Amino acid sequence: MTLPSVTGDAPEGLVEAVLAYEAALAADDQEALAAFFVPAADTLRADANGLLVGHDRITAFRGRRGGAGVREVRELRVHVLGDAAAHVVTVNAPASGGRGAVSQLWVRNESAGWRIAAAHVTAPARAIDQRVWRVVGAPLVAGAPDGPLAGETVAVKDLFAIAGHRIGVGVRAYLAESPLEHRTAPAVAALVDAGADVVGIAQTDQFAYSIAGLNPDYGTPVNPAVPGGIPGGSSSGPASAVALGQASIGLGTDTAGSIRVPASYQGLWGLRPTHGAVSLEGVAPLAPRYDTVGWLTRDGGTMLRAARVGLAGSGAARPSGGLRGGGAHTGDLVAAPGAMASCAEPVREAFDRAVERLVATGREVDAVELPALDELLMTFRVTQSAEAWRSDGAWVDAHPGALAPDVAARFAWARDVTPEREAAALADAARLAAALDHALGDAVLLIPAAASAAPALDAPDAELEERRQATLGMTAIAGIAGRPALSVPLLVTPEGPVGLCLVGPRGSDLALVELGLELEDHLARA
Amino acid sequence: MTLPSVTGDAPEGLVEAVLAYEAALAADDQEALAAFFVPAADTLRADANGLLVGHDRITAFRGRRGGAGVREVRELRVHVLGDAAAHVVTVNAPASGGRGAVSQLWVRNESAGWRIAAAHVTAPARAIDQRVWRVVGAPLVAGAPDGPLAGETVAVKDLFAIAGHRIGVGVRAYLAESPLEHRTAPAVAALVDAGADVVGIAQTDQFAYSIAGLNPDYGTPVNPAVPGGIPGGSSSGPASAVALGQASIGLGTDTAGSIRVPASYQGLWGLRPTHGAVSLEGVAPLAPRYDTVGWLTRDGGTMLRAARVGLAGSGAARPSGGLRGGGAHTGDLVAAPGAMASCAEPVREAFDRAVERLVATGREVDAVELPALDELLMTFRVTQSAEAWRSDGAWVDAHPGALAPDVAARFAWARDVTPEREAAALADAARLAAALDHALGDAVLLIPAAASAAPALDAPDAELEERRQATLGMTAIAGIAGRPALSVPLLVTPEGPVGLCLVGPRGSDLALVELGLELEDHLARA
Repeated sequence: MTLPSVTGDAPEGLVEAVLAYEAALAADDQEALAAFFVPAADTLRADANGLLVGHDRITAFRGRRGGAGVREVRELRVHVLGDAAAHVVTVNAPASGGRGAVSQLWVRNESAGWRIAAAHVTAPARAIDQRVWRVVGAPLVAGAPDGPLAGETVAVKDLFAIAGHRIGVGVRAYLAESPLEHRTAPAVAALVDAGADVVGIAQTDQFAYSIAGLNPDYGTPVNPAVPGGIPGGSSSGPASAVALGQASIGLGTDTAGSIRVPASYQGLWGLRPTHGAVSLEGVAPLAPRYDTVGWLTRDGGTMLRAARVGLAGSGAARPSGGLRGGGAHTGDLVAAPGAMASCAEPVREAFDRAVERLVATGREVDAVELPALDELLMTFRVTQSAEAWRSDGAWVDAHPGALAPDVAARFAWARDVTPEREAAALADAARLAAALDHALGDAVLLIPAAASAAPALDAPDAELEERRQATLGMTAIAGIAGRPALSVPLLVTPEGPVGLCLVGPRGSDLALVELGLELEDHLARA
Repeated sequence: MTLPSVTGDAPEGLVEAVLAYEAALAADDQEALAAFFVPAADTLRADANGLLVGHDRITAFRGRRGGAGVREVRELRVHVLGDAAAHVVTVNAPASGGRGAVSQLWVRNESAGWRIAAAHVTAPARAIDQRVWRVVGAPLVAGAPDGPLAGETVAVKDLFAIAGHRIGVGVRAYLAESPLEHRTAPAVAALVDAGADVVGIAQTDQFAYSIAGLNPDYGTPVNPAVPGGIPGGSSSGPASAVALGQASIGLGTDTAGSIRVPASYQGLWGLRPTHGAVSLEGVAPLAPRYDTVGWLTRDGGTMLRAARVGLAGSGAARPSGGLRGGGAHTGDLVAAPGAMASCAEPVREAFDRAVERLVATGREVDAVELPALDELLMTFRVTQSAEAWRSDGAWVDAHPGALAPDVAARFAWARDVTPEREAAALADAARLAAALDHALGDAVLLIPAAASAAPALDAPDAELEERRQATLGMTAIAGIAGRPALSVPLLVTPEGPVGLCLVGPRGSDLALVELGLELEDHLARA
């Protein structure tokens, strides 16, 4: 190893320790690396993915990462802090190009020698974060020179046609056979015509057939709201892009929660519009009976502007009077305690606290009873699966091994739904939709957008599956009823944010966003 | 401001100092911010753009940046280091989304209180570094499943046609009117067919008509080899992408030095092939008489593989025997001391040292006399300008104000070149080419690839212009003679790397790369 230029009056053994650490890193010697960090709960490591606190989490991260790559230390600068501490900054040149920088707080201990109490690492930037994006531009599609969305930046889920690009549906093997699109989907064009730039095409769960946000072909997008948590899906890329500040509007789809769930997990606003309110032309279908096009944003004001543009000309664009119809619960807020039985305890507590605070500020929240969620969910699943198989079954059959195991298992289940079973489930769906309409009328249902905060990436499969089922039971309410549903980041649990979901009557989309802003304001003041 | 959660036993006044610093940052209070950093030469600030050393450079950077944007501190963790020092890590949530992290070494001084001796900053990543790239993908174009370039990644200068994309020539107004390309340029296709992935379309100086690498429309790419230095151009984006490790091969063009100069400034290998050896089909022209397509890489092995693919089928692909022809200096190395008079002193010294070391290892380097560089340069300029105006003059005329002042001035000069003046210069060019052929024969000329290391971004205009003229005089040798020229990062000056340029006989392209590898080896052992 070439010795770096050393600036500063380094205490004995320190430069050797820094270089020994670099050697352990080059060899990916996990044991040695773990020993270089002080074995304490307040040991720190920061990088572009966030701050890890505690020796154990740092060691676990290092195990997942699998080596840092060869790099040569070019500069080493020391600030001495008494006898037993020093601050070291190194500049390195990785063999793979670029420059990196590392700041470390080293402390000396009689027996253990020099060890790191805190590290801050900057690695060379990548050209693209392919966990979040498939294509990005500067911009990819320039917006009209002015309009209500001028200055906004859009992350488009990889299900939408954009002229000159292919639709990839989150599957590399699908992309390889996908044609260049010659037209742009109207839902994309509406935003562009209103002045928004398209930043790029963002990732999706494979065929949009998941709410987790994991993608084996491109990697899993980061969830900046919950370090180490899953991002939620299937609009995972648009959600993470917005949460990361890389776009201001995510354009997604929601069949069974694919906007509401990532919004909930990442502390965003997410709107699933009234079914049929936004054109699905130029959008790869999953289950047309339930597919919707909607948006994710960091704040309610941007959501309102995006939704006004996206819903223009549809019945869902009626003004706030949309909640003042003539139903049983005209414009009222209702909750369904029976529908929250499968929610994690911290979510129920956060929900109850929010409702109490709304009541304390003068809002009435009545209780309603809904059809059993497991019946809703099974009916939804059978009818959705039959349509998903019609949409994608031929491709899936022709490409064995192309999909992740969980998505492949879902398609395998879908393949086995018989026409008779689908017909029976369709009849059930009509009956359940009528029951939901009867129970909810023109009221707005308040319900958590997901059964838990974002589960950890390394949570056991059984836990992920349990939370998935619990969440899908709740998201099926809007699905079966064709009602718009807005997730607003108003619930906080120790595990991370959870959305407060507002499910309104069909056509009340914009009114729901206005109501969300109102409730945000109420809760901020309560 | 919401108070962050504080972990660790912070000494008196420290948390207040951290929050006061954040307040000064939010207000972009330059004076207060400067006062928060210890006024010393060893004060440090690291971020994704590199390490700044010294209070003065940090203050100057802050002046250029113009504010950091509003952010809220969410976590604050302290390691106490005796009475007068503490290490603080904060996690912040910028209003523009994402998460940031800052590590700071604070020291206390009786009179001045708590101040920062070192800071390491991670801001949320951008979706795209538009200084380097106009479009990137994961990948943008997938390479053939195997081939000699499998695993390589290409940054394509924004002059080449790629099916489904537009050619932007580094000018936003041009891009806005540019059609979707339906075919891919053969120079791009050759790399893709050989297994390389196209990562994206990289930036260029406007119309490729500069060697500086500045671009007012997209910003100036970083030069990781010279912090604060210009990147060199016009293949600025491909060069920086390769230097930053975001691609392994840059596909560029070189008319008057547009590959050799950024290679020199950024410590890369850069090959301008024999004029005519690589197809210019699907490449926006600047001056076809001098335009060439070539490559930039971090190492000679990759250059050799890229050039073998890119030159396949051309006369320039002949094996290393290309340097063993029958001229006056068969395969010899020559230098032209008279052609280096305008080089910066440290470049001449580094060049002389390199030649001495080659001689010490048994290579002969004879001296030759070349036509005067200012005559070469003026002849080159007149003939290049006339062609540039024919290529782009109509567009430039139709779009007043679209170009940067220096590029606009170059086109204004080009507009005034009369047919008579061009004809006279063409006759001069033929005479000078013959004189160069006579002087050089089959020898390989060694000459610096640029007259200086990368000038500083904030260098005075007069200095930039002087260095530009001096560099263009040297690059005109290969231009006028149509000879291949390879820049190899073998010279080191205190201001940064400089390329040792090898100008060979026409058709010796691959042999030049092999010779470059040989000289690199010689100099490493000398």
